[in-house]
Amino acid sequence: MAGRERIKKQKPIKPDLPGGFRDYGPADAIARQRMIDTIRRTFESFGFDPLETSSVQRTEVLTGGEEDSGRIIFNVMGSQEKNSDTSLRFDLTVPLARFIAANPDLSKPFKRYQIGNVWRGERQQAGRWREFTQADVDIVGSSSIDADAEIATIIYTVFKNLGIGNFVINYNNRKMLDTLPAFAGFPKDKLWSALRIIDKKDKIGEDGIFKELIKVFTLTIANKVLEFLAQPFEMPSKTLLQGEGLREYAEIKNVIPDERFFQLNRYLVRGLSYYTGSVFEVTLTDAPEIGSVCGGGRYDDLVAKFTGQKIPAVGASIGVDRLFAAIEKLGALQKKQTLTQVLVLQLDVELKNEYLSMVQELRNAGINTAFYLGGDQTLQAQLAYAVKKEIPYVAIYGAQEKKKGTVGIKDLAARRQQEIPRRELATFFKTAFPPVA
Amino acid sequence: MAGRERIKKQKPIKPDLPGGFRDYGPADAIARQRMIDTIRRTFESFGFDPLETSSVQRTEVLTGGEEDSGRIIFNVMGSQEKNSDTSLRFDLTVPLARFIAANPDLSKPFKRYQIGNVWRGERQQAGRWREFTQADVDIVGSSSIDADAEIATIIYTVFKNLGIGNFVINYNNRKMLDTLPAFAGFPKDKLWSALRIIDKKDKIGEDGIFKELIKVFTLTIANKVLEFLAQPFEMPSKTLLQGEGLREYAEIKNVIPDERFFQLNRYLVRGLSYYTGSVFEVTLTDAPEIGSVCGGGRYDDLVAKFTGQKIPAVGASIGVDRLFAAIEKLGALQKKQTLTQVLVLQLDVELKNEYLSMVQELRNAGINTAFYLGGDQTLQAQLAYAVKKEIPYVAIYGAQEKKKGTVGIKDLAARRQQEIPRRELATFFKTAFPPVA
Repeated sequence: MAGRERIKKQKPIKPDLPGGFRDYGPADAIARQRMIDTIRRTFESFGFDPLETSSVQRTEVLTGGEEDSGRIIFNVMGSQEKNSDTSLRFDLTVPLARFIAANPDLSKPFKRYQIGNVWRGERQQAGRWREFTQADVDIVGSSSIDADAEIATIIYTVFKNLGIGNFVINYNNRKMLDTLPAFAGFPKDKLWSALRIIDKKDKIGEDGIFKELIKVFTLTIANKVLEFLAQPFEMPSKTLLQGEGLREYAEIKNVIPDERFFQLNRYLVRGLSYYTGSVFEVTLTDAPEIGSVCGGGRYDDLVAKFTGQKIPAVGASIGVDRLFAAIEKLGALQKKQTLTQVLVLQLDVELKNEYLSMVQELRNAGINTAFYLGGDQTLQAQLAYAVKKEIPYVAIYGAQEKKKGTVGIKDLAARRQQEIPRRELATFFKTAFPPVA
Repeated sequence: MAGRERIKKQKPIKPDLPGGFRDYGPADAIARQRMIDTIRRTFESFGFDPLETSSVQRTEVLTGGEEDSGRIIFNVMGSQEKNSDTSLRFDLTVPLARFIAANPDLSKPFKRYQIGNVWRGERQQAGRWREFTQADVDIVGSSSIDADAEIATIIYTVFKNLGIGNFVINYNNRKMLDTLPAFAGFPKDKLWSALRIIDKKDKIGEDGIFKELIKVFTLTIANKVLEFLAQPFEMPSKTLLQGEGLREYAEIKNVIPDERFFQLNRYLVRGLSYYTGSVFEVTLTDAPEIGSVCGGGRYDDLVAKFTGQKIPAVGASIGVDRLFAAIEKLGALQKKQTLTQVLVLQLDVELKNEYLSMVQELRNAGINTAFYLGGDQTLQAQLAYAVKKEIPYVAIYGAQEKKKGTVGIKDLAARRQQEIPRRELATFFKTAFPPVA
């Protein structure tokens, strides 16, 4: 509530963002929004409904049972907070599990999507952002493999609808991985030591895996682990569980519209311990360096952290920003500086009310229309503004046009000008910009 | 990375949210999303483009020059943060000003919209949330009153398009208020003492204003202040500035499509000191108790905090959650439990591939389609699921229908069932659910 006078005395404040955060200017925001619209439309076509969970959660809810996750959390402190008991969500899955636990009467299977931001309090690293957008779909309350198949199919359909070329849905199954100790001959409680090594395949290769394995296990066991990983899909299963995982793989492969996009990847682990069956990860064939742009799986025990009761669930999360970066890198992003379709020029102050009528007519007809609001009212300045903004058309109307009952329409990309009857203004642009289905 | 075994040993974690935060379940999220879509479409039709600013900002950027705003801020602390130098944005205007300052080459006027969450670290109060959604439009780089008029018109159009009945855009102008000291005979530096009292009109009434004024000013001055506030619009202006503010009011009134929705309110101050001309606030005639659902104004000095250079700006912010609450209260909210239009039942395991084809056909045709994924596969359970979820149609297909080449379609609201040829499935639903323009 300080008086305005005070402002001028201050030294300017540096307009910087904190490290790891960024803005998206209009050209990026327009392209991102189009991507998000496609994702959302696809999610809805599969019968998923939106859910909006709170960005701020109790820290215990976020970290519960996962000691490591405390490291990636942003604590949040307002005037009412003590210690670090509230934090920003780091994914959309844990807040979903909380919602399910807090609303036991929801009819299930409960299918929801959420497209929202998540935050990671980790120290900033090159190419990693500390705020980013995820687009999640989950099916809660179905233990059927049909639900896993639906998640695989929706991932397939989203990537097809985004039109981003070739991709692979890598698949593995924790039930297969769970058979590894028995197969390789080591105690069950060493499974995660082995999985953590296997998970590094992309970074260290098969040789690297072997080198790390023999630090922890005997040579015999290390060799058996490699043998396990080398099993072709067709190999007869050694144990019931291995068989169960493979059977699930086969069922999903049968359902997915094009099985060439769906591949068994025995090295796929995914870090989170909460997965209990299927795990997925999507990589783009033409941008492998971007890494995974979507991941997910079945997590039948997560909700039980809050309820004590098992509620099966399966889902996937698309990394919107990483996918956006990948599409940009692949040159598949059509960037537009503006959504504005027409700029109505202000050429004669006497005609202002007529300009306003034209603008209103066009907006009512669903045409994105700007009225020139700049200080420099020369024709040249107004045209230069439209060109710099990449607005496709300008409407020119002065005393002369008024007398003739026409409007001049300039197509700035084609550098072509024509006159149309004033009364056909909205019709002209409705034809130029047919509504998108 | 803990093993799954560990989970079961834990005591369940309470699935509570911190005070002042909430989730929106599907019925609310669907209605909110529809509201936001309408707002976004209206903003775009006016030639505004999206901008996405970071949720997290340097605290100095957020509080700079407004000592009081520190009180409402949520500090954010990750592993890299020291002290309280990063915080969550409390509005969308300050991050916009920062973006403008950091990107001096943007062509202006720069028209952007942003629909996003903001956070307030204040102690929780009844009916106030600590995370909420704002929908903002701003025009940066135009000092023309046409820009103020465009903001007033877009507010008018959004509320019309939302179809929420009667509303009033209350208007005042800081340039009028700035003439108050000269009119009432008190020093300029006492202006904010007077404005803070005037601003309480809705809470304390005119009598209350008078009582508070005579604590600070003489009786003569208090009477002059009341005389100032009672001036009808038509009264000849006493001073040039009063005249300037009134002239701007008249120009906006001339532009706005229906001037009955636009009213001069001499008591309107709006708390933020950064306003320099027009100020707006929208109230709903049938839900005055909700208070303001939209506010804004001209703030020609805000960007200068970062650049030292004056860049004129005007804008408005719609309080999406408050508006949502108002619409709900007015009974004008059409709530739907789900966006799903058809549930394809699973009646015969032999026909699974045919169900999947039906589901895919419908989804490809733009029909939101769910495939039944529940554990209880009885017909009764599947129908009960559709009824509870309020899915309007179910598709029934068993051995009998297969033989006849038909599908049974049940309209659950009308309790009517019919058989249609299998090949007309998609056509049937495309007619039942024509695409929304």
